[in-house]
Amino acid sequence: MTSPVVAAVNAVGRGEMEQAEAVMGVSPIDIEHLLHAKMADGPSGPVAAHGVAASPGAASGRVCLSVDAVLDADDEGVPAVFVRPFTTPADEVAMSVAAAIITAKGGMASHAAVIARGWGIPAVVGVETLSVDVAAGTARLGETELRDGDPITVDGSAGTVMLGAAEVGAVEIPEELFTLLAWADELRGGRLAVRANADDAAAARLAREFGATGVGLCRTEHMFLGERLPLIQRAITDGGTTALDALAEAQVDDLVELLEAMDGLPVTVRLLDPPLHEFLPDHPELAEDNPMLGVRGARLGVLRPELYRAQAKAVVEAAARRTAAGGDPQVQIMVPLVVGGPELAHVRATVTDEVAGIKSRLGGRGVPVGAMIETPRSALAALEIALWADFLSVGTNDLTQMTFGFSRDDIEAKIMRPYMHHGLLEANPFETLDEVGVGRLVFDAVAAVRATQPETEIGVCGEHGGDPASIAFLAAAGVDYVSCSPHRIPVARLAAAQAVAGSA
Amino acid sequence: MTSPVVAAVNAVGRGEMEQAEAVMGVSPIDIEHLLHAKMADGPSGPVAAHGVAASPGAASGRVCLSVDAVLDADDEGVPAVFVRPFTTPADEVAMSVAAAIITAKGGMASHAAVIARGWGIPAVVGVETLSVDVAAGTARLGETELRDGDPITVDGSAGTVMLGAAEVGAVEIPEELFTLLAWADELRGGRLAVRANADDAAAARLAREFGATGVGLCRTEHMFLGERLPLIQRAITDGGTTALDALAEAQVDDLVELLEAMDGLPVTVRLLDPPLHEFLPDHPELAEDNPMLGVRGARLGVLRPELYRAQAKAVVEAAARRTAAGGDPQVQIMVPLVVGGPELAHVRATVTDEVAGIKSRLGGRGVPVGAMIETPRSALAALEIALWADFLSVGTNDLTQMTFGFSRDDIEAKIMRPYMHHGLLEANPFETLDEVGVGRLVFDAVAAVRATQPETEIGVCGEHGGDPASIAFLAAAGVDYVSCSPHRIPVARLAAAQAVAGSA
Repeated sequence: MTSPVVAAVNAVGRGEMEQAEAVMGVSPIDIEHLLHAKMADGPSGPVAAHGVAASPGAASGRVCLSVDAVLDADDEGVPAVFVRPFTTPADEVAMSVAAAIITAKGGMASHAAVIARGWGIPAVVGVETLSVDVAAGTARLGETELRDGDPITVDGSAGTVMLGAAEVGAVEIPEELFTLLAWADELRGGRLAVRANADDAAAARLAREFGATGVGLCRTEHMFLGERLPLIQRAITDGGTTALDALAEAQVDDLVELLEAMDGLPVTVRLLDPPLHEFLPDHPELAEDNPMLGVRGARLGVLRPELYRAQAKAVVEAAARRTAAGGDPQVQIMVPLVVGGPELAHVRATVTDEVAGIKSRLGGRGVPVGAMIETPRSALAALEIALWADFLSVGTNDLTQMTFGFSRDDIEAKIMRPYMHHGLLEANPFETLDEVGVGRLVFDAVAAVRATQPETEIGVCGEHGGDPASIAFLAAAGVDYVSCSPHRIPVARLAAAQAVAGSA
Repeated sequence: MTSPVVAAVNAVGRGEMEQAEAVMGVSPIDIEHLLHAKMADGPSGPVAAHGVAASPGAASGRVCLSVDAVLDADDEGVPAVFVRPFTTPADEVAMSVAAAIITAKGGMASHAAVIARGWGIPAVVGVETLSVDVAAGTARLGETELRDGDPITVDGSAGTVMLGAAEVGAVEIPEELFTLLAWADELRGGRLAVRANADDAAAARLAREFGATGVGLCRTEHMFLGERLPLIQRAITDGGTTALDALAEAQVDDLVELLEAMDGLPVTVRLLDPPLHEFLPDHPELAEDNPMLGVRGARLGVLRPELYRAQAKAVVEAAARRTAAGGDPQVQIMVPLVVGGPELAHVRATVTDEVAGIKSRLGGRGVPVGAMIETPRSALAALEIALWADFLSVGTNDLTQMTFGFSRDDIEAKIMRPYMHHGLLEANPFETLDEVGVGRLVFDAVAAVRATQPETEIGVCGEHGGDPASIAFLAAAGVDYVSCSPHRIPVARLAAAQAVAGSA
């Protein structure tokens, strides 16, 4: 079947349609279909389990119950389906090479789901009939025992898991998609830009190929996983200059690559956000009752300024090296989980002290320092926060969690289905921005800042930045850009054009 | 030294001052001083540790490191100072008879602090130099080992702990306080009523003596502690009619007593709020990553309607028995942690089904069903929630936690001091309502509901209901009543009068 994208571009070619008509007539879902592998037509095994359709696409491969099993499969060139109770940053080394991911717990905004979407890996999460005993290396899916090496198939678009192998169609992106998206950008006329959430150069390059005009969110904690974990562990527990310098140096190379991949376009680097316990699980004194609402983000920056200072140093050093190499690094530093103006001013001073020393090597350019608006308090205090921020970026994931009092991982698998079933929520607020609550906070914050500091750039870097319905609302709220997973960029470009043109 | 309260009342008696002048001239802190025991003047041991001054008053007693040690001391008639890493509902049987409480963790809104203030027990929490090994029955305070039976002194007003016994003055409330408060009530003229957070008849009686005109918050989970814990455990895990009936029946007697203590005045009973894991710590499948943002409150009411139905039945049955006994029960049912109108409508239907069957025994009176406004979403959606609510009650504790993204227990001991030290927050938002963020949500919610449904009663039942600065703000926001710990009622009555008269 011809994709509506191809049909529309051909119709324009035949002079039967205007370019703008083609852009307005294609549905974001049509683009989605072009980007992800689908189950091939024809026979496939019966559905063995349902879960949350967390990341689209389909894949067949062998069951891998451990990080090592995934890495072994990868070495052999065999597609690995990573099967876990849930995932943590320590699993990312395996996730990055997995063909698909299945987890027993979690929802659309769980670690597994967010990472899988970001990396374009099909995933089904919150599979309630799946139980995995990591220590024993065993798993059951309903009545069936799963062993390492068993063939299994995942349809992340449908949220289903099939036992056995099945044929999966290959992804072939037609040239017409890029033609249509170029028309979409033209129609958008520079308003509501689309940037990417990209944590490394590979993701940034992919995002740029897909048309992202910057990185709206680079999460630096992902730079400290795998073999680098001891670096940040030492920096946290020891805090001495050597450990901190090693921490900074490790980031510089990553950041240089990232800035090179996005040369000439803005790259927003977020300082460390997660609670320290995530890096030091063996330190029970760091454990918290509700880590999502604990000592993380800007609070870390106040309590442990040396960590933020080391990170700021790495950011500016990377920009200096890119400048020396003739590049055009447009890096920005973003402070997460802010609650108020004085707090941002305090953390900002920590960071800018570090910038000052290296600034001469940036060719006179400054490094803007901004804040994430992700606590409801920060949205309500946006005016005073904006006084100390060169830019603002709304983190709609955490803002949704705190506004509803919904912890992603705890709530989504357990209550979202009954709530939707009974009609208690119009949509899953982690997928489509809740206009009544979260949207109201965003709308009012943008309006307050625009009224007093119209030059302050305001973006959105939550998952909602890639959701067409949310993009339409955010366009109406007047944000300057949305930032989303690289794989969502084409969808977001179309949706942004439709939102801008539709409301014009 | 003569209390300013006594001096002011005497001045009125001598005709030197008007009653209103006396009310406006006394400070809430003067009342506070009259209500709590103080360290006697003269020598006392050096301060051995500082912590959060969580509940005012002073007491000397013997160190008790276990529930049993407290109960033994109580049997012997010796004052017990309960020393714990933190407290949980399982400790309440000991807390209720302790002379003072010290915990290593927690802040102003931790379990230990909230319970201690509610019960008028001096407490110091978040004592960082205290370590308690519950299993081993040992503790250290700085360099000193603490053993069961060691003499120790707590000043909950100053947030200090002294080793050894010390003299503590007795509390003698002068008659003039009640005279002044009667004048205050007159000045208030019925606006901004003061109700009590009271979970049982004893607390309600005390609150009524102190002048509360109703119970604004009765937390039913406290009815299932100690020997009754198995009742709710069975109801949760089994859910059969027998277990649920036993659950309901256990509550009926408590509620009959409570309604009798507050006869003729409104009593707001909150349905179960905590995550089920609090009652079933041995069920790891119920554990949550962030239980504060997990399956609790109205979410329980959706997933486990039989629990709310059993509770509603108990409430209405208790009212029916009081009616039969010639009483005037004015009971209301409150649904916690609501996020939206459709959700409240759904839970409301669960509850009113139960009410319908017993209503004929209430002499034609209905049982109002209302909602707590404690998620930011519920404040932003107050208009649609009010459509399904006979009354609203703002839970400022949880609203503060979610608006700031501050988990009480994790944040308060760790960041509040550095944040105050650096001037990053004007005040501890758990003590004084944050006007910029939380206050704005409350203000806008009240305004929205008043504009469309002016008859809907709106109260506030967080800790802030007993804080004079917060009461002034809440008076300006236009709430109908504040509800606070019984021991805060006198302070709240004065503050409410001053707020109402000051803004008139």
